[in-house]
Amino acid sequence: MMRAIAADPAARGLTDDVAVLEIGGQALIVTHDIMAEGVHWPTDADPADVAWKLVAANLSDLASKGAEPIGVLLGFCLGNNDWDARFANGLQEVLDRFDVPLLGGDTLSFIDRAAPKTLGMTALGRASYRPVPARCGAVAGDVLYVTGTLGDASAGFSCLMSQAPATPFLLNAFNRPVPLLKEGRALAPCVRAMMDVSDGLLLDARRMADASGLAVLIDMATIPLSPDYQTLRGNDLASRLDAASWGDDYQLLFAAAAGTSLPVEATAIGHFTKGTGVSLSYNGQLVPLPATLGFEHR
Amino acid sequence: MMRAIAADPAARGLTDDVAVLEIGGQALIVTHDIMAEGVHWPTDADPADVAWKLVAANLSDLASKGAEPIGVLLGFCLGNNDWDARFANGLQEVLDRFDVPLLGGDTLSFIDRAAPKTLGMTALGRASYRPVPARCGAVAGDVLYVTGTLGDASAGFSCLMSQAPATPFLLNAFNRPVPLLKEGRALAPCVRAMMDVSDGLLLDARRMADASGLAVLIDMATIPLSPDYQTLRGNDLASRLDAASWGDDYQLLFAAAAGTSLPVEATAIGHFTKGTGVSLSYNGQLVPLPATLGFEHR
Repeated sequence: MMRAIAADPAARGLTDDVAVLEIGGQALIVTHDIMAEGVHWPTDADPADVAWKLVAANLSDLASKGAEPIGVLLGFCLGNNDWDARFANGLQEVLDRFDVPLLGGDTLSFIDRAAPKTLGMTALGRASYRPVPARCGAVAGDVLYVTGTLGDASAGFSCLMSQAPATPFLLNAFNRPVPLLKEGRALAPCVRAMMDVSDGLLLDARRMADASGLAVLIDMATIPLSPDYQTLRGNDLASRLDAASWGDDYQLLFAAAAGTSLPVEATAIGHFTKGTGVSLSYNGQLVPLPATLGFEHR
Repeated sequence: MMRAIAADPAARGLTDDVAVLEIGGQALIVTHDIMAEGVHWPTDADPADVAWKLVAANLSDLASKGAEPIGVLLGFCLGNNDWDARFANGLQEVLDRFDVPLLGGDTLSFIDRAAPKTLGMTALGRASYRPVPARCGAVAGDVLYVTGTLGDASAGFSCLMSQAPATPFLLNAFNRPVPLLKEGRALAPCVRAMMDVSDGLLLDARRMADASGLAVLIDMATIPLSPDYQTLRGNDLASRLDAASWGDDYQLLFAAAAGTSLPVEATAIGHFTKGTGVSLSYNGQLVPLPATLGFEHR
């Protein structure tokens, strides 16, 4: 909806997760995310976890640009006092954990307290490397890499919803994702394109391919799965597709020239070619895309 | 609620409307405001006016710091398509009018469309003068000034609510406030403290006095009222108190040393003294404060 209005080059056509501004010879990275009850967290979620995730998701956007956080601003609609107090404690905890100051924001009272809560956060960071990695920039022949494992947040969430037992690892992956700030800074000089996986690997990989004017072919057999995920869901193609199309992973997805020596552990999961869209292979055969590649905001 | 967490000096203890960051030798000003249906605009408001006011309120915060806008980010929950389209048109119009780019943001779908809409906006600006004017800094003996006239938005809004006829001037004051960017930049070098009047003059003046560790005495007879306001509501003490305690004025309120030559037209409405709080006089007599000084967010 807003793309036509965001014509300034700093907006990167809204095809990136962040804006990049030149200020006094430095590149300032700015990102704004909203999260809503019933979409990003279940109504009975621990407010401290909600605060954690709001901050972590924003910092993950900074991480994917190789940026060092400067601080955050919060937009908060006051509601239930107990919820708000627990949110504030969680906010303090996550900001301390990542050593990021709360710089300001706005609170609002007097609105419909029965309405689903929405939260807004703006994060500011300083680029550690120029040019600042973007979604675009991959070149045909580049390898697509992802850090860590995928699908753990999805598995943690589905256990929560079905009240099935889940391992602390899976629950933490959903409730307390860790933004890969150090890894993002280390990778920034080595990548041709980078973003975080927040909306589902397949959707985010397609966005990187689209932004780069290329196609991407992903080998589903290489999708990295944790032992906990495999114990719960197995590791067949269906469970790999699930892991690659849910989101909330907050891993770093990047394109690098074949043969690049990487400063961070990552898994090669595919490569870019001429063409458009995302294609999948499994055991040497092309396989169909799932109905949903990930979570669409618009 | 958030004050205890915002310990970083850039946050200015959340007693200012903005954060001030040092980036590459420049002072970056960042502010975030939220607005909600039923609080900041009536449900049947023109969405283009809502967009205008959201942008204008944020830019007014920049104006009060003498800052030049760099751009804005929007947090927007998608709802009714027609409303959203009209909002987008209004957003384009107001951004064009003040020559400010939309840099990014986030949109969200799938939430309860019957819930009151909330919008978030982050504005970034570059300080034109250092030190950046703050709420604090007034000195005993300083004169309190305000630009323009007060109460016009209040009068426009009450006409709208009661379906009484209103002049275009009063309606515009409510629907399409103008951020005083040029005036703020001109005043920044001349003031000891500055803020915009968004929550009611008496409340905002008290905040400036509190932040400066002083009392402020306001002469109600000097409160500037427009001809349209006076025609509608008269100019007696009660109507002056109304004009000074409603908000949405987006005028600049500032402290300057007595005798300062001002580059912008403004009205002297009081002065700072030792002590605390805000006191009012009228025709040489102290008069009681109204029950409500303005709009409290927290």
